[in-house]
Amino acid sequence: MRVLLAGGAGYVGTHTAVALLDAGHEVVLLDDLSNTSARAAERVERITGKPAPLVVADARDDDAVADVFDRLGPFDAVVQLAAFKAVGESTQKPLDYYANNLGTTLALLRVGIARGIRSFLFSSTGTVYSDPADLPFTEESTTSVDLSNPYSKSKRMNEAILEDVARVNPELDITILRYFNPVGAHESGLIGEDPAGIPNNLMPYVQRVAVGELDRIGIFGDDYDTPDGTGLRDYIHVVDLAEGHVAALERGRPGYDVFNLGTGRPVSVREVIASFERAVGRDLPQAVLPRRAGDVAATYCDPAKAQRELDWVATRTIDDASVDAWRWQSANPQGFATEVDGDAT
Amino acid sequence: MRVLLAGGAGYVGTHTAVALLDAGHEVVLLDDLSNTSARAAERVERITGKPAPLVVADARDDDAVADVFDRLGPFDAVVQLAAFKAVGESTQKPLDYYANNLGTTLALLRVGIARGIRSFLFSSTGTVYSDPADLPFTEESTTSVDLSNPYSKSKRMNEAILEDVARVNPELDITILRYFNPVGAHESGLIGEDPAGIPNNLMPYVQRVAVGELDRIGIFGDDYDTPDGTGLRDYIHVVDLAEGHVAALERGRPGYDVFNLGTGRPVSVREVIASFERAVGRDLPQAVLPRRAGDVAATYCDPAKAQRELDWVATRTIDDASVDAWRWQSANPQGFATEVDGDAT
Repeated sequence: MRVLLAGGAGYVGTHTAVALLDAGHEVVLLDDLSNTSARAAERVERITGKPAPLVVADARDDDAVADVFDRLGPFDAVVQLAAFKAVGESTQKPLDYYANNLGTTLALLRVGIARGIRSFLFSSTGTVYSDPADLPFTEESTTSVDLSNPYSKSKRMNEAILEDVARVNPELDITILRYFNPVGAHESGLIGEDPAGIPNNLMPYVQRVAVGELDRIGIFGDDYDTPDGTGLRDYIHVVDLAEGHVAALERGRPGYDVFNLGTGRPVSVREVIASFERAVGRDLPQAVLPRRAGDVAATYCDPAKAQRELDWVATRTIDDASVDAWRWQSANPQGFATEVDGDAT
Repeated sequence: MRVLLAGGAGYVGTHTAVALLDAGHEVVLLDDLSNTSARAAERVERITGKPAPLVVADARDDDAVADVFDRLGPFDAVVQLAAFKAVGESTQKPLDYYANNLGTTLALLRVGIARGIRSFLFSSTGTVYSDPADLPFTEESTTSVDLSNPYSKSKRMNEAILEDVARVNPELDITILRYFNPVGAHESGLIGEDPAGIPNNLMPYVQRVAVGELDRIGIFGDDYDTPDGTGLRDYIHVVDLAEGHVAALERGRPGYDVFNLGTGRPVSVREVIASFERAVGRDLPQAVLPRRAGDVAATYCDPAKAQRELDWVATRTIDDASVDAWRWQSANPQGFATEVDGDAT
């Protein structure tokens, strides 16, 4: 398969590119580099020894997307990972989030359908589930557009749009992947999560504390109704997540379908920190802080549908993720801004 | 006030332009003319004796919208009426509907906020209400994004976006007007509803039968649980609706707010036909057909909030609407394609 990865130079994008190339497919990365670096694409080529051409353009722009199809197509599939993803920032900049996260999908769909793609894979989120009584979340659990932040709402809107588009394009495979909490990095240590600014998520925050870029880990609430009082999440190793994309693309079944990609195993904030401390080999400074608005006690999925229908299951543990994330962060303390041996000059 | 009317050459747009000009405000019409004619804007000038400059451009295009602000601004308010509006067509062309109906709002908001508008008025629909048990619908009634068609979903998504944008722009007046069923025409007979193709809505369909453009009126179901078995709707005279826009703009209160614009009086399909027959002075051919998918037995609103907070109330009856619509249709049997005395050549 020839696959266009929109947002392909980002965290999930680079790992998905590696997994697709390792599985024998071809990729083109489309990214505006608003939250990553061209070096990420070069690292994909170093890991795999295969070409991963990068087009720097805005995926909201129909003409720019059409130009990618003209110059580097045809493509069998589009994987739509081009989105702003910081939940907190989305509440401050809702218009930017809606314009980007809806506009990219609409342009990729318009051009992709006109050019005859067979599959459209959409990166969604487990935060579209809105009723804690449904835990663990299955694909049938309640979703809502009345969610706590514009990021999650924009993802849910995209799903609704894609479901309607699928109805009038029955030959097209439109697959929604609802990610839980991606963590870890490729075992090479050459690619990993490199968020701009203060990380919004726990593991990259812990990574930055471990390299001395941030002072201490904040634990937002230790009085939740959970075994150790801290929040429970479903942390999925990003390489497992990437392999889930390959499995969904290789299935390629026409119609609209939705899959949770998670481990099904809830892990607490304190357990993540302890795991990372084991990987680093020392204790890390931490402090309990007040709960954050919008946080919930627990969120984790039932991944049985993906196992049953995609023959996919997450095999890596939180300790694997910690070891891999620490390898990436310690070799690249400034993320992709760090030049390492072998980088193109 | 100086007001930019996006979709200003359309049915609601022209009547709102007349109402704003009559109330002493200034208007600029922005329209891509995809479903109307430049003659509509000329007719607004004939009715009011005041300028109603028309810019033909796509309101999804940030640069085009910015150019309107540069050349014809500044504006105190944007009224966002630029949308595709045929429910049935939306199920066939969902991508076009989402791209247009979301893209226009996003571009108008981005440019408008950057250029310092104080008010943003959004044209929404009573079809966002999803639970018949709530009848008559108040602004607090249940809404959903899981509605029966992309048109209604796109409107509900726009509302959700606007609510989030209002939260971070507390100085801005963002007002949602949920229209029930607009009917009728300006009493001058110079402007009215002129849908392309076969009308989706009852009154323009009846009008076309009355002028012999269509054979007979279809009554979609006469076995609903209503007094005469046909569907009940809340038909609002378009001039009342236009005056509702003026009232909302003149209020201009910062914050997000929602108003139903309807009469609160349910009228049946048979009653509409009988009213139009009285206006025309003869019986019209009609036939009972099967129910249409997605139609509901009854939908009408409680307009008390608009009366209380906007000091606005619909004063015109269905008979007024029939007389006015017939005056428009009989003088303009081909809608704006009909040249009448006084038209510019």
